[in-house]
Amino acid sequence: PGPHGERLAAAVQVHVERALRRPRLAHALLAEPVSPEIEAVRLDCRHRFHLLFSEILQDGIAAGEFIPFDTELAAACITGALDEAIIWPFAKVADDARDKPVLVDFMVGFCMAGLDRFRTAGAGGLRRPA
Amino acid sequence: PGPHGERLAAAVQVHVERALRRPRLAHALLAEPVSPEIEAVRLDCRHRFHLLFSEILQDGIAAGEFIPFDTELAAACITGALDEAIIWPFAKVADDARDKPVLVDFMVGFCMAGLDRFRTAGAGGLRRPA
Repeated sequence: PGPHGERLAAAVQVHVERALRRPRLAHALLAEPVSPEIEAVRLDCRHRFHLLFSEILQDGIAAGEFIPFDTELAAACITGALDEAIIWPFAKVADDARDKPVLVDFMVGFCMAGLDRFRTAGAGGLRRPA
Repeated sequence: PGPHGERLAAAVQVHVERALRRPRLAHALLAEPVSPEIEAVRLDCRHRFHLLFSEILQDGIAAGEFIPFDTELAAACITGALDEAIIWPFAKVADDARDKPVLVDFMVGFCMAGLDRFRTAGAGGLRRPA
């Protein structure tokens, strides 16, 4: 039930876990004011994540796991949600904090829930905790 | 069923609709590389949206509409999702495009779906299109 949904959830999870390993470094990389040149590199980086998420979703639609929807808009929602969480609340998390899995689960759950309504009947709802 | 969820959905909707009224202006305001001083103003602006969303969610928890959850993280997800959508796919939307309600519905639906699992039994699921 839902390999492409799982792929997306895994990609989101890896992205968030990597950021949470060094929260303050991630904050510096994403949010500290920098020169326009470096800002352009940042945008390009974000665009690559956007493309990755969008491509996984397009694969999911092609495979009949999701009904067709605006994958570019969905990918933007996911990329933006992750980046903002990394910039803002994550930056306050200590490097050795023990509650990181809770944060990771929250992020994965939030992003995947937004896609649930596009799942086809057979695909089932993944990552939808009670 | 769910006045605070409705408040949040309305706030999200207003934010997105305003951006969609002048998509390229919104893109310029949010995304064009600028000096660090202006970037700091941007961050402050985004922080205010963050606070607004977070406060509505805290009210919803206090009213028993939601079980307790990390409202700061949720507000970051919502703020980030909206901003990224405005920066990236929205910027390509013509000022007089006719399909804007579809985009607005998508954004509101995406953000609210991420909160569904925190709704108490009595609150019901709002904004969850078939």
